[in-house]
Amino acid sequence: MTSPVGLHRVVEPDGVLPQAATRLDASPEIVADEVRIRVERLNLDAASFRQLAGKHGGDGDAVRAEVRDIIAARGKMQNPVTGSGGMLIGTVEEVGPESAHGLKPGDRVATLVSLTLTPLAITDGLARWDGRGEQVPCTGHAILFGRSIAAVLPEDLDPELALAVLDVCGAPALTARVVRGYRAPTVAVLGGAGKSGSLSLAAARRAGAGRTIGVVPNEAEAARLAASGLADAVVVADARDPVALARAVGPADVTVVCVDVPGCEHGAILVTADGGTVIFFSMATSFAAAALGAEGLAADVTMLIGNGYVPGHADDALDLIRGEPAVRALFSARLTAH
Amino acid sequence: MTSPVGLHRVVEPDGVLPQAATRLDASPEIVADEVRIRVERLNLDAASFRQLAGKHGGDGDAVRAEVRDIIAARGKMQNPVTGSGGMLIGTVEEVGPESAHGLKPGDRVATLVSLTLTPLAITDGLARWDGRGEQVPCTGHAILFGRSIAAVLPEDLDPELALAVLDVCGAPALTARVVRGYRAPTVAVLGGAGKSGSLSLAAARRAGAGRTIGVVPNEAEAARLAASGLADAVVVADARDPVALARAVGPADVTVVCVDVPGCEHGAILVTADGGTVIFFSMATSFAAAALGAEGLAADVTMLIGNGYVPGHADDALDLIRGEPAVRALFSARLTAH
Repeated sequence: MTSPVGLHRVVEPDGVLPQAATRLDASPEIVADEVRIRVERLNLDAASFRQLAGKHGGDGDAVRAEVRDIIAARGKMQNPVTGSGGMLIGTVEEVGPESAHGLKPGDRVATLVSLTLTPLAITDGLARWDGRGEQVPCTGHAILFGRSIAAVLPEDLDPELALAVLDVCGAPALTARVVRGYRAPTVAVLGGAGKSGSLSLAAARRAGAGRTIGVVPNEAEAARLAASGLADAVVVADARDPVALARAVGPADVTVVCVDVPGCEHGAILVTADGGTVIFFSMATSFAAAALGAEGLAADVTMLIGNGYVPGHADDALDLIRGEPAVRALFSARLTAH
Repeated sequence: MTSPVGLHRVVEPDGVLPQAATRLDASPEIVADEVRIRVERLNLDAASFRQLAGKHGGDGDAVRAEVRDIIAARGKMQNPVTGSGGMLIGTVEEVGPESAHGLKPGDRVATLVSLTLTPLAITDGLARWDGRGEQVPCTGHAILFGRSIAAVLPEDLDPELALAVLDVCGAPALTARVVRGYRAPTVAVLGGAGKSGSLSLAAARRAGAGRTIGVVPNEAEAARLAASGLADAVVVADARDPVALARAVGPADVTVVCVDVPGCEHGAILVTADGGTVIFFSMATSFAAAALGAEGLAADVTMLIGNGYVPGHADDALDLIRGEPAVRALFSARLTAH
């Protein structure tokens, strides 16, 4: 029996989802609701590549050999130390008759589900990759399950820009949904000059925010964000310092945490008005710190775990970057800086 | 300048909230919005007491000495290893003129904010405690900040029962709020026979759930829950096994996680229908597992960090236990079993 979440591809251990599996079946034959993609490039997750490069002292050949071995052994690219994967770009090769993806052979796509749950087989030994960067050109195939998602790469945008947008497209989508639940709310975005932060600011304004506040850690980011015009107010504050943050940022109805450092939970709760909502997008968020913090402050706030999936999120984010030159400029500057 | 969250009581380090402070000022003089309580008993958090008892090999005198030293050094009871505290019972002694607590001298209260942020001073050296249990009879005083909360202990309920209810009163309150946002939803409670779980089941039904499902780990708990009649269906399943859980529990509109073991995130997401909500009350919840799990499953579910504070939660939970003999029986059985 096949499953839209790919249980039939789990080789071991029994009873887990593909993400938690140690080995997937990456054979190229697809079942009725699957899609096979001819892979062109992997984008390794930054944390994963950093760990591999560090372990091998920057020896590209050793990094390449390890990635090759991981994919061969696990049937997917999931760094065993960091647990993370990345995403991939490729071309649709075959679409099962019951697939609801809306894809057709020849479409150039990026996967929006993690490599950690995507069956993957490499046929060129990664020979075209020097092992020195997160972008891995390669030949092989990958499988999308019935419920896996992918976005067709737009022809009017630089693929690198499109990928960077798709990588964080859940943040603006969920921010917009929450903002629409309030009447002209004040929205504070911690980390407002970053990728997910700037998209969230733009999405909040489009969704009807009454006032947007971008919080950034230093004057350089403040200048960039102020120049973009994406926020009605730009505030320099350390998001890890709840007292300073609360002093600098008035009460917000919606607070969006896009700062990838630990310890921002209390500050985010403290700046949020009663009846407000905090959306945590940072993977550095501590569940216990948030839960106990709100209780300790008797803060009647709704706290959301940022779900990276919202229907339509990819198209909406690409539209946002098309329609908001300021976001596009911030993104392009970040891409060039790398 | 004084602060409703008690910043004026933080001695060190600078710029943190009382919960994160290493030392609080526990002097008895109150500011305008504070309340001083004459302490009668501390209820140490179970994890904290277990750590202390283990460290001292069950030597009650050594445990007592360490708790005394912690309170003297920190001005609050916060176990430096587990980071946890507990709650306390006492009598209101003095109420500041600007206090909005609604308390008056002589009220017997339980604090609903953690001991980890409550200024506390002990005057009897804990002489009446043998160091062998979580209940610590003592003499001293504690301070409530403007935003700290406390509940007056009801005269019609056994204090131990009331305390056990107050300890988890955030769960039924938030469950009810979420259930009211749907029309006759199906509600699944993982850990439905436990304290927060049984209260949540009762609250869900009162709030208009169309169908309630209690999920329990074994036949003994299933029998207890079935006998209580609190759930329309009782299911035995391992909440850590997403595949088995999804097979046993149909799609739910609201899923409430009250199981205090790690690894329940994927299962909870998988049993929740698109457009549904998962409420995580378990402190063992992994933020990253929840966020990445939902994205990997392309699950359009709202994921809430269970906030222990909802206005009115204490009174509502006490009303629930008064009006639902089945919940009361489950609670009393658990208290007796200890």
